[in-house]
Amino acid sequence: MKICTGIAPVNIAVIKYWGKKDEKLILPMNDSISGTLSTDEMHAKTSVALSPDFTEDKLWLNGKEVSIHQPRVAVCLSELRKLAQQKKSGGDMVHWKMHICSENNFPTAAGLASSAAGYSCLVFTIAHALGLDSSQVSHIARQGSGSACRSMFGGFVRWRALPSELEGKQSDGEESEDLRRKQSEASNAEQIISEAYWGSMRVIILVVNDQAKSTSSTDGMQRTTLTSTLYTHRVHTVVPERCERMETALNEKDFATFAQLTMQDSNQFHACCLDTYPPIVYMNDTSHAVVRFVHEFNTVAGGTKVAYTFDAGPNACLYLLEDSVPLLLSTLVQYFPASSEISVPYVRGLKYSTTPSPLQLPSFTPQPAGLLQYLISTRIGSGPKILDDIPNNHLVNEQGAPNHLTS
Amino acid sequence: MKICTGIAPVNIAVIKYWGKKDEKLILPMNDSISGTLSTDEMHAKTSVALSPDFTEDKLWLNGKEVSIHQPRVAVCLSELRKLAQQKKSGGDMVHWKMHICSENNFPTAAGLASSAAGYSCLVFTIAHALGLDSSQVSHIARQGSGSACRSMFGGFVRWRALPSELEGKQSDGEESEDLRRKQSEASNAEQIISEAYWGSMRVIILVVNDQAKSTSSTDGMQRTTLTSTLYTHRVHTVVPERCERMETALNEKDFATFAQLTMQDSNQFHACCLDTYPPIVYMNDTSHAVVRFVHEFNTVAGGTKVAYTFDAGPNACLYLLEDSVPLLLSTLVQYFPASSEISVPYVRGLKYSTTPSPLQLPSFTPQPAGLLQYLISTRIGSGPKILDDIPNNHLVNEQGAPNHLTS
Repeated sequence: MKICTGIAPVNIAVIKYWGKKDEKLILPMNDSISGTLSTDEMHAKTSVALSPDFTEDKLWLNGKEVSIHQPRVAVCLSELRKLAQQKKSGGDMVHWKMHICSENNFPTAAGLASSAAGYSCLVFTIAHALGLDSSQVSHIARQGSGSACRSMFGGFVRWRALPSELEGKQSDGEESEDLRRKQSEASNAEQIISEAYWGSMRVIILVVNDQAKSTSSTDGMQRTTLTSTLYTHRVHTVVPERCERMETALNEKDFATFAQLTMQDSNQFHACCLDTYPPIVYMNDTSHAVVRFVHEFNTVAGGTKVAYTFDAGPNACLYLLEDSVPLLLSTLVQYFPASSEISVPYVRGLKYSTTPSPLQLPSFTPQPAGLLQYLISTRIGSGPKILDDIPNNHLVNEQGAPNHLTS
Repeated sequence: MKICTGIAPVNIAVIKYWGKKDEKLILPMNDSISGTLSTDEMHAKTSVALSPDFTEDKLWLNGKEVSIHQPRVAVCLSELRKLAQQKKSGGDMVHWKMHICSENNFPTAAGLASSAAGYSCLVFTIAHALGLDSSQVSHIARQGSGSACRSMFGGFVRWRALPSELEGKQSDGEESEDLRRKQSEASNAEQIISEAYWGSMRVIILVVNDQAKSTSSTDGMQRTTLTSTLYTHRVHTVVPERCERMETALNEKDFATFAQLTMQDSNQFHACCLDTYPPIVYMNDTSHAVVRFVHEFNTVAGGTKVAYTFDAGPNACLYLLEDSVPLLLSTLVQYFPASSEISVPYVRGLKYSTTPSPLQLPSFTPQPAGLLQYLISTRIGSGPKILDDIPNNHLVNEQGAPNHLTS
């Protein structure tokens, strides 16, 4: 019997992933780059129990049992077991069944890349239990949820698309098992800079009040690759050059370049969504108000102090340096006031002791109260961690049952 | 003394113009195609009085005197006089001063391409007064406001960008007067099909309740051409092919193809605005709700019955065939109800006698009342017209003073 518990971070792309070359292996159309958020504020947590007595694999998500046979979970488990056998790691445990419990410490409803953190945590924790090197399994996390591979490392991370020499199919139209394996292993994530290298990088998440059901990203990506005439240009011409400039900006800690590239790439991702037929729209009027606010803030502040980026939903994620946070927060709270009915802190997470007077933004009108639900103040952090030395931390007990269930 | 009065239509592009190759001549980066709306519902009206007794040119817009020296008005007048001299047309009148009164019969605030109708009307009416052939002056209207050249004809109209053989500058970097003149005359508008050829084409304009000040299109275009990396691909690759397919669809009266191209091109124009840095956003949440409504309407109706298109503002323009109008209107009014405080008819313009039961759209939620101010029901119509035979129609009197002034 073995029990292992890990946590894994959320990541927020600054050069966006959108579109798959291969739906099954989840091979992306282009490279992407993301920042890994500190697990102090947001993380997924997974416990895995392995025992020779268990008769079947089982999975609980946020306290609810779900099918272990969903293809993306199943492929992660089988790939991890296959790798362990190949590496002669984990001994008999590769034949034991697993009971897995996983949960997020942040609302899934916030649309904050919960599946990336979740699959990263699942793969990281099981890899650890089976004695595998966790730095070598990002390609397995990728097969759970594409961007999960980027949550396998701290700092800023680049997820590479398939190198062109591995793209070809064999002459008979069928790809060999061997080529498929090579393809899968070649599209992995790697750290560009560590969380310590640019330690002053901060992140603020703006959770937008919005009930609208968005297009799922899997469906959206397929539609974009099939119908957007601008998308191909983005993939082949714009992104490769942007990734190189982004890596340079990160290595040189050049915030202005980092910020402009981040904003431009977010806008271009949403532009390609809009160029999809029928169009896909993730940003709403509040999101666009945040965009105008950030540009106006930067104008009045006399330089590019803050960058916005938006994923497949209306929430904004702001990147900025530590010394800009107090002024940004006081100004943001002034121009996007909390609802008068708010019952929880409006700004959560990392605290700052100074509260400067807000910047006055002559060209930006204060917004109605309650457009934003709340803000999460956080920073760039490290990759997944094992918590085994912390007592009572497991989500699963010695009998392989979850420690708490929700109905 | 001569007095002449004309009216000119609004046009709504189905393949969008965005971006100039030459700011002064207003040479567009790409061809565009538009439908000309009937002057019955919306038009600009211009009266021009010419007299040897007038001491200076004067201009009143919507009853208010404005400077005649604004460069775009000045260039239209001087080009028309130059052409008349060249063609030996208009006799002594080319030396007479003009008093010009111009107004729109629709609210400028609605953001409905009022400058296109206005400059088209100005140039058409003065050309007529000077005895010029009005089918040969679209390149002059273009220099007032780019898309004004498309309002010089009825039906569907194509505005051609400069042919590549005229693009070159001379070796010394300076363009000769002669080349500039050739360039200007080469970018003109021409009718693709007449209003009678596809007589069942109808248009409904949805005026969105919105106070936001938008980026001016002149500023927006400049920023897009300078900063959007997707825009070049649109201009060089996407639009040329789309224009050919659109012409074919119009000639074949193939509504489904016409409608899909129209929607895709509107979306791509707004995608390029979003890809601009800082981004330009003209559509708002109401605009996007209209987009979702139209796609859902088409899905439930079992075919592409309606197309939307959006210009540099949040208002929607729907193209559809006559037999789809009653069902579209009853469904639209059900899902976008009028404000309870509305004091004018919600649907204005062309009337239809049947009011079928609305389509039920299972995936589209009825919107809050009052998102739309009102609807204008109209059709594709003819080009500018002279109204001289209608008594008491002039906006200017025999003394060259406007018949009504606003403060």
